[in-house]
Amino acid sequence: MTYAVGLLLDAGIVFASDTRTNAGVDHVSTFKKMTVFEVPGERMIVLMGSGNLAITQSVVSQLHAWNAAQPKTRGGRAVRANRAILRAETMFEAARIVGAALREVHALDGEHLTAHGADFNAMFILGGQIGGEAPRLFQVYAAGNFIEAGVDTPYFQIGETKYGKPIIDRIVRPETSLSVAAKCTLISFDSTMRSNVSVAMPLDVMLYERDSLKAGFYRRIPRNDPYMQALSEGWSKGIRSAFEALPDPDWPVESGDSRRPRKRRKG
Amino acid sequence: MTYAVGLLLDAGIVFASDTRTNAGVDHVSTFKKMTVFEVPGERMIVLMGSGNLAITQSVVSQLHAWNAAQPKTRGGRAVRANRAILRAETMFEAARIVGAALREVHALDGEHLTAHGADFNAMFILGGQIGGEAPRLFQVYAAGNFIEAGVDTPYFQIGETKYGKPIIDRIVRPETSLSVAAKCTLISFDSTMRSNVSVAMPLDVMLYERDSLKAGFYRRIPRNDPYMQALSEGWSKGIRSAFEALPDPDWPVESGDSRRPRKRRKG
Repeated sequence: MTYAVGLLLDAGIVFASDTRTNAGVDHVSTFKKMTVFEVPGERMIVLMGSGNLAITQSVVSQLHAWNAAQPKTRGGRAVRANRAILRAETMFEAARIVGAALREVHALDGEHLTAHGADFNAMFILGGQIGGEAPRLFQVYAAGNFIEAGVDTPYFQIGETKYGKPIIDRIVRPETSLSVAAKCTLISFDSTMRSNVSVAMPLDVMLYERDSLKAGFYRRIPRNDPYMQALSEGWSKGIRSAFEALPDPDWPVESGDSRRPRKRRKG
Repeated sequence: MTYAVGLLLDAGIVFASDTRTNAGVDHVSTFKKMTVFEVPGERMIVLMGSGNLAITQSVVSQLHAWNAAQPKTRGGRAVRANRAILRAETMFEAARIVGAALREVHALDGEHLTAHGADFNAMFILGGQIGGEAPRLFQVYAAGNFIEAGVDTPYFQIGETKYGKPIIDRIVRPETSLSVAAKCTLISFDSTMRSNVSVAMPLDVMLYERDSLKAGFYRRIPRNDPYMQALSEGWSKGIRSAFEALPDPDWPVESGDSRRPRKRRKG
């Protein structure tokens, strides 16, 4: 599986993705799922993919190919709509281009996947900032359509989303700082990795600072990262303390932990 | 959807289920999903179902019908295997009977559901104690087969399981008391209901005390239950405090909440 998160904040965007891929439980690998499209001073765009790795990698390769191709013109006018993320004028156009790449891959591979009983399973988070626009964040579906984050729900998750969602819902607001949002993101990953072995370290994290128009602080967080370990242990202890501080129910059953369990009777 | 949990403890068993059912988002109802089969002093068995309500209700009706039917005998010997939970000699036999009821319903309804494009979607938690056996807990699948809880994983969840799983994993051990496990269960429901509107109050909770062989403390927890509200609010505050107590990353980005967000530039 995969877990990836994008958080759209007033201060910028937090991007994070894990690196585990698996085809069955006996074929587990590490792949980077975060791709950066950057022209410093002009645009900074991050794409994170989940789902079938063959599809998501093909989409990224297609996007690179479109970036590399010279725009076809006839008499000075473009022959077809721009398909280069590096030349997109808005993030909306960039999201359309990611959708177009998905549709290109679907046209090539879709029926063959169906013939082998496999779904066309892919999802992307696309975020960043171009020129004078504000930073924007999109979630692109396998069909190539997409939705955009707003102030009510300033984040998107893809892959194994459930275990890591509650902490984001409780903590992250548009005014949350990049640092605090990054801390929340790492705890969200910790909860996810604790419950789903198909999401795993190392993690890729990038903090994009609004209006910087360049790749922000990037870090690959390895398996034994001291800060991640401190967070994980501190969070376990904090959760347990918070739980113990809550009142037990005043229901008519014995209370307190029965540390000396009764022997099990044999049936 | 549904959320139901059974926790097998040295001290007994905690059962809890929500009451929301929905067929689409425009047909939301309240149904009890917890059924008790009890012969005080001899057996106490609880069944909780998730999935297609028509299936789970049919299973429960079938079980009642089998309980009501007189066992067929010929020359003093039973003609067929016992199908009455109230006469099962072990919890294993009771689990087989629930499986048999599922297969009976599948034989009647299965192909018709398929014809209408619906899955045969049902899952049960069955727990309790019979005679001299220790308390036992089972999860019964739609196919009628089942698994039993043990010391390594002393609980089962059905329905919307993910949001409420981490807190149970962190807190519940076989030696946890019924009260503490009940508190943990309510928090597990709080997390689930916060993230999935298809799980909702009121809740049914029963605490079965080991070797009591009778229905234990039962409570229907209504929407505005003061204890549940205190738990929910206390847990929110506790989580937030635990989060804030953790160190921020020492990464080279601005830290602390930027309370005065910059204005968004128009694109």
